[in-house]
Amino acid sequence: AVAAPAIAQSTPDVRWRLTSSFPKSLDTIYGAAEVFAKLVAEATDNKFQIQVFAAGEIVPGLQAADAIQNGTVECCHTAPYYYVGKDPTFAFGTAVPFGLNSRQQNAWFYHGGGMELLNDFFKKYNIVSLPGGNTGTQMGGWFRKEIKTPADLNGLKMRIGGLAGRVIQKLGAVPQQIAGGDIYPALEKGTIDAAEWVGPYDDEKLGFNKVAPYYYYPGWWEGGAALHFFINTEAWAKLPKNYQAIVTAAAGYANVDMQAKYDARNPAAVRRLVQSGAQLRPFSPDIMEACQKASVELYAEISKDNADFKKIHDAYMAFRNDEYLWFQISEFTYDSYMIRSRAKG
Amino acid sequence: AVAAPAIAQSTPDVRWRLTSSFPKSLDTIYGAAEVFAKLVAEATDNKFQIQVFAAGEIVPGLQAADAIQNGTVECCHTAPYYYVGKDPTFAFGTAVPFGLNSRQQNAWFYHGGGMELLNDFFKKYNIVSLPGGNTGTQMGGWFRKEIKTPADLNGLKMRIGGLAGRVIQKLGAVPQQIAGGDIYPALEKGTIDAAEWVGPYDDEKLGFNKVAPYYYYPGWWEGGAALHFFINTEAWAKLPKNYQAIVTAAAGYANVDMQAKYDARNPAAVRRLVQSGAQLRPFSPDIMEACQKASVELYAEISKDNADFKKIHDAYMAFRNDEYLWFQISEFTYDSYMIRSRAKG
Repeated sequence: AVAAPAIAQSTPDVRWRLTSSFPKSLDTIYGAAEVFAKLVAEATDNKFQIQVFAAGEIVPGLQAADAIQNGTVECCHTAPYYYVGKDPTFAFGTAVPFGLNSRQQNAWFYHGGGMELLNDFFKKYNIVSLPGGNTGTQMGGWFRKEIKTPADLNGLKMRIGGLAGRVIQKLGAVPQQIAGGDIYPALEKGTIDAAEWVGPYDDEKLGFNKVAPYYYYPGWWEGGAALHFFINTEAWAKLPKNYQAIVTAAAGYANVDMQAKYDARNPAAVRRLVQSGAQLRPFSPDIMEACQKASVELYAEISKDNADFKKIHDAYMAFRNDEYLWFQISEFTYDSYMIRSRAKG
Repeated sequence: AVAAPAIAQSTPDVRWRLTSSFPKSLDTIYGAAEVFAKLVAEATDNKFQIQVFAAGEIVPGLQAADAIQNGTVECCHTAPYYYVGKDPTFAFGTAVPFGLNSRQQNAWFYHGGGMELLNDFFKKYNIVSLPGGNTGTQMGGWFRKEIKTPADLNGLKMRIGGLAGRVIQKLGAVPQQIAGGDIYPALEKGTIDAAEWVGPYDDEKLGFNKVAPYYYYPGWWEGGAALHFFINTEAWAKLPKNYQAIVTAAAGYANVDMQAKYDARNPAAVRRLVQSGAQLRPFSPDIMEACQKASVELYAEISKDNADFKKIHDAYMAFRNDEYLWFQISEFTYDSYMIRSRAKG
């Protein structure tokens, strides 16, 4: 018998499917999975091919994690906070109200113990996770009427999910779960009063400005919303070490690339939205404070009965406080100056 | 004859040397080259090995680009603005006074046409470049005395390099080029009045707070200082496509990883520095404005005689203005709120 060359053992043919939680129309966020799969294929001379499916093609968008847990699909690209119904601890993988911004989220993931904590938790779901993109601070969404005080949230029907929905519920609002394509008619008919989506580049495509002109900011429930690649633990363990390294590197590239794409595309989109009638409005300080107070209450409630949540929450919030100690110095002062200078022309 | 398996052609043994412009003591920035080389080795089962050398081991730190241009070394990890003596256009690869912040720099590189423009320029130097790290907004450095007005810059001897040195020269300051290890004694003896280095985590190691207690911010000359991997064009062209993809992915990972490391380590360092006597001071608005005015003048002067500089400058500054149009909305308002909220406790 002729011995197989050693290298053959490390470049086996592997075929994975990746189910995205996003439609192709969200090209920035969906595109991160394509960037990832393309790099993995190129890096292995097409020996390791990952076929990317949009939400709903093989798995519904919000069930991507289940498909990984069950091993019916090897890999997905998703927002962990979609799974707060399973356990609110998932939220720390994406964003929690009044949490980390995009860079801080990466600092926590890569060098603040975040991925160790999260992957320890994700083990229960047969998931190995790698950070794979960020949107930056999202917008607060589209409102049919101005809201000026916390009292204006009372009775407000808003399309908003996850922990943020539970926060505004404490202020009397009525959170609604509505799929992307159904938001526009709901806003138009007045079935809902407000809806949050992502930011200018994505929001523009859905045309919300025509039916709900008040465009609020910031999206305090996603200061830096992170996406992840979830990989089935057995599928991950079966990969040779070199393929694991390629997947790790490609996910890192997709991570920085996706944030860069949003940052490059949002400016022109926000300008077009304002030109076509969107009215930018900051949430008032008392609305922000009331929502933060409600968030802190919610975290305390969940922490009482959920040790995983408490453990990660406490580490995450301590990290957040340290991050803003530093960011308020050079980073924030620089941006402040540049923004003022730009306004002066 | 037995035909070699096809895969053998795409996983040749390759040995590169990488010369870093940084000493090992700057573990965060030097570490990015190690992260990069380790991923490339793991991804290729050690077929493609990149040996990392610290500044001065095989090439002096500030001559790394020359070694790539001459092909004596295949790859380096460096700050392009070290080479403004060759051509000030190099500066756009790292940072220019009143330029982009870290995220915006990546947005420009990956999706704003930045790397196309830079690599077109770098061709003249036989360099192919990939972004490979960022420090975030640096600090403005250490001063023996407080400076309150632009007039206080007059006659000030400051360790500061590149375009920033030419900017403060316009205000009467005397820029000095001093290697890292020589800064402390120069500050102690009063040979110089001030020195800029990087940020809290790196600055702390050199102990400047003991001899120049006023720690100014922000470093307006590096809003988001980027590092790059420079690769000799022939060495790059010789790589099989799959190795090129691995190098690209690993550089992307190193890019996001290095910023994360700085962001994770700076908070504790700034706290320790303040506890040991460093006095934080913001540059006054009139100093910032005078320096920005001098920067704009400098850009106009260089642009007159340097078409490469003008072309990239104009694209870069248009991009910057767009970026801050967007960043001032959700991103900045979110950070503002979080910083105020933290201060209230």
